[in-house]
Amino acid sequence: MDSSPVRGMREFLPAEKALRTQLADAIKKNCLLFGFEQIQTPSIDSWEVLSAKFAGGGETIKEAYSFKDQGKREVGLRYDLTVPLSRFVANNKSLPKPLKLFQTGMVFRDGPIKAGRYREFEQFDADIIGCSTMLADAEVLSLAASALESLGINFGIKVNNRKLLNAVLEESGVPEQKRLSAIICVDKLAKIGEGGVKKELAEKGVDEKVGGKLLKTLSLSLTELEAKIKSDEGRQTIGELKQVFAYVGEFGFGKKIVFDCSLARGLNYYTGTVFEGFASESSISSSVCAGGRYDNMIGALGGENLPAVGISFGIDTLCEVLKEKTVEEKSLVKAFVIGIGVEEKELIKIVKTLREAGVNTGFDLSQKGVSKNLNYASKKKIPYALIVGNQELKSGKLTLRDMKSGKEEKLGLKEIAKKLV
Amino acid sequence: MDSSPVRGMREFLPAEKALRTQLADAIKKNCLLFGFEQIQTPSIDSWEVLSAKFAGGGETIKEAYSFKDQGKREVGLRYDLTVPLSRFVANNKSLPKPLKLFQTGMVFRDGPIKAGRYREFEQFDADIIGCSTMLADAEVLSLAASALESLGINFGIKVNNRKLLNAVLEESGVPEQKRLSAIICVDKLAKIGEGGVKKELAEKGVDEKVGGKLLKTLSLSLTELEAKIKSDEGRQTIGELKQVFAYVGEFGFGKKIVFDCSLARGLNYYTGTVFEGFASESSISSSVCAGGRYDNMIGALGGENLPAVGISFGIDTLCEVLKEKTVEEKSLVKAFVIGIGVEEKELIKIVKTLREAGVNTGFDLSQKGVSKNLNYASKKKIPYALIVGNQELKSGKLTLRDMKSGKEEKLGLKEIAKKLV
Repeated sequence: MDSSPVRGMREFLPAEKALRTQLADAIKKNCLLFGFEQIQTPSIDSWEVLSAKFAGGGETIKEAYSFKDQGKREVGLRYDLTVPLSRFVANNKSLPKPLKLFQTGMVFRDGPIKAGRYREFEQFDADIIGCSTMLADAEVLSLAASALESLGINFGIKVNNRKLLNAVLEESGVPEQKRLSAIICVDKLAKIGEGGVKKELAEKGVDEKVGGKLLKTLSLSLTELEAKIKSDEGRQTIGELKQVFAYVGEFGFGKKIVFDCSLARGLNYYTGTVFEGFASESSISSSVCAGGRYDNMIGALGGENLPAVGISFGIDTLCEVLKEKTVEEKSLVKAFVIGIGVEEKELIKIVKTLREAGVNTGFDLSQKGVSKNLNYASKKKIPYALIVGNQELKSGKLTLRDMKSGKEEKLGLKEIAKKLV
Repeated sequence: MDSSPVRGMREFLPAEKALRTQLADAIKKNCLLFGFEQIQTPSIDSWEVLSAKFAGGGETIKEAYSFKDQGKREVGLRYDLTVPLSRFVANNKSLPKPLKLFQTGMVFRDGPIKAGRYREFEQFDADIIGCSTMLADAEVLSLAASALESLGINFGIKVNNRKLLNAVLEESGVPEQKRLSAIICVDKLAKIGEGGVKKELAEKGVDEKVGGKLLKTLSLSLTELEAKIKSDEGRQTIGELKQVFAYVGEFGFGKKIVFDCSLARGLNYYTGTVFEGFASESSISSSVCAGGRYDNMIGALGGENLPAVGISFGIDTLCEVLKEKTVEEKSLVKAFVIGIGVEEKELIKIVKTLREAGVNTGFDLSQKGVSKNLNYASKKKIPYALIVGNQELKSGKLTLRDMKSGKEEKLGLKEIAKKLV
């Protein structure tokens, strides 16, 4: 029998799982600090909900796993957390607004497998629902910055606004019916460069001169745009962006969160602020978090028409970034207790004392020899071994071996517990 | 559009999710203390693996969701964590044994919906693989007891051994071909009582006198059985059980972990020790954890023939037990900051200070009036509101309102942070 996971599925060994847990716990702690509350939504939803308008867009829905349950219901596995969230909000109308919610869970996409793309992956989303002020956008952005900072990652977050992008497209002379495909081209700027975008724009039928003007405008600062943009909506949007930047400045993230008019974000349900965070000083170029304002989706999924702004953290990408930084793989098991000719009950007493002191402790369950046990502890990268013979029991001084240096010292159990906790 | 979850699926609101998280975190902490390491296995596995011999038994596999992926592979959703674990062990042969692993995740069963039965639910498993000593069984049992104790639950764990049950069935005169169905009858003792089991045994064709003798033997203590059981395997098994009880006694759980010869456990893959934990002083009669030794499953799923012993915690049942104990629903958000005619940047400064001190803090994002904000904080069961006007800013003394009692006091921000952290 083939014992490897099905294609597109992954399993995580202890070292990687520990890193992923550390990551999710840090983001979670920040969500709680920012007053967000955790919910949980189901992995399976009705096909009607999963395929609803605005939900996921054209490409994603093709990759959704769908099947019938035993009650002949058309159902499928969720492909993101935003659709179940929108359904959740519609289903729990009486919850006081604004809602500040976060959730983490597995999502599924039965698409082509590429480097970094899997058929099951974890998402971590935080959203504010029922609030249209720019304070909400700033709160979400500051949460992202605070979480990335607490992970010890060097980062930057680019911010733009869909309405501003539309105004720029209009003033640059991109015809209305070509604006959505122009946005998709512009979204590739970081990946394919100015030349590449110009070429793609031309392929989409955007006049070369218009394309050039567009790219030039997209490189302007907010102040420069303010002098240039004439339309009411454009000017109002610049005002909104200035407010967002003022608020995140007050939160202490003014240097980390910056304007970039070329940021587009591929998904078509965004209606206002959009943003994307990247790790600097890292070889990983994918975004570590992304999100924006989506004021029309919840209404479209059967709920009240509620404004919403949210962020999704890329757990897989963040994990890759942290892996580059993590020098040494270490076990979460801190001590391994090995007996030499002593009764099990003596070992259990020692193990019990260490655990009660809060030391993660394993011990020889298989009653093997000392060298086999030391070999085991070393392979498992457990930092300390505690070697206990009858003489040690009599004297009350146990042998604590630093597994990396090989150095041993004789210490009382209390001292050892204190040292290892 | 119907916005409720699909039949059999659930969503969890913040209060319930917080309880589930608290629960899982406590068990996780104990797993780490006991030197177990966390892994993660995929939600989707091949149908070949899911339907393999020993895997889940006859009834469960009928309830597994199965479908084809876009690569036309026959796949399905996992219905427990033991099958993916066994595949994981077979797929990672080089990991040093014994393995002490835990995992938590969603599992799926497309079966009939009853009270307390859902089509998606969370399992939390811990297993020791590659160790046949009774020390391993005692370690798993002590982990269970330690975890339940840390949850503040009053509990008892019943322990038996499949081999002893077989010996008792043999000595009571139950014919070999009827022993498995007799075990299934005996398993219902707590639910349907002695009379019910006698009746079912008779229906399965077990002689009434034999059934009576069996039930009498099953009520004996380990010492009484020791005097009665004659077969070599029976006597050896009693020796194993005595060892387990001696070890868990050393771990300090001698009173909580007790012998019960009538404990059978329905699943047919168990080969030795079996156990089941129950909450006392609770109206919830389902088991809160259960497990045992399964020495043949990993070999059957394509791995080396490795002995294994494991436990599964019932997150749903534990949650129901804790709900009975939890008197008051409280938000994880500790403070809600409300401004009266002050600039947003002043609010942000206060919020930032509280969060940096470690206080989970929300604030008025929607720029509503004071009474609406107080109403919101009260509905959300946030314990404290912080009311900030220009006068408060000038004096440096903010109004801290205890939302339950309605009492207000004037305090400096540092004092407030200290009080709420």
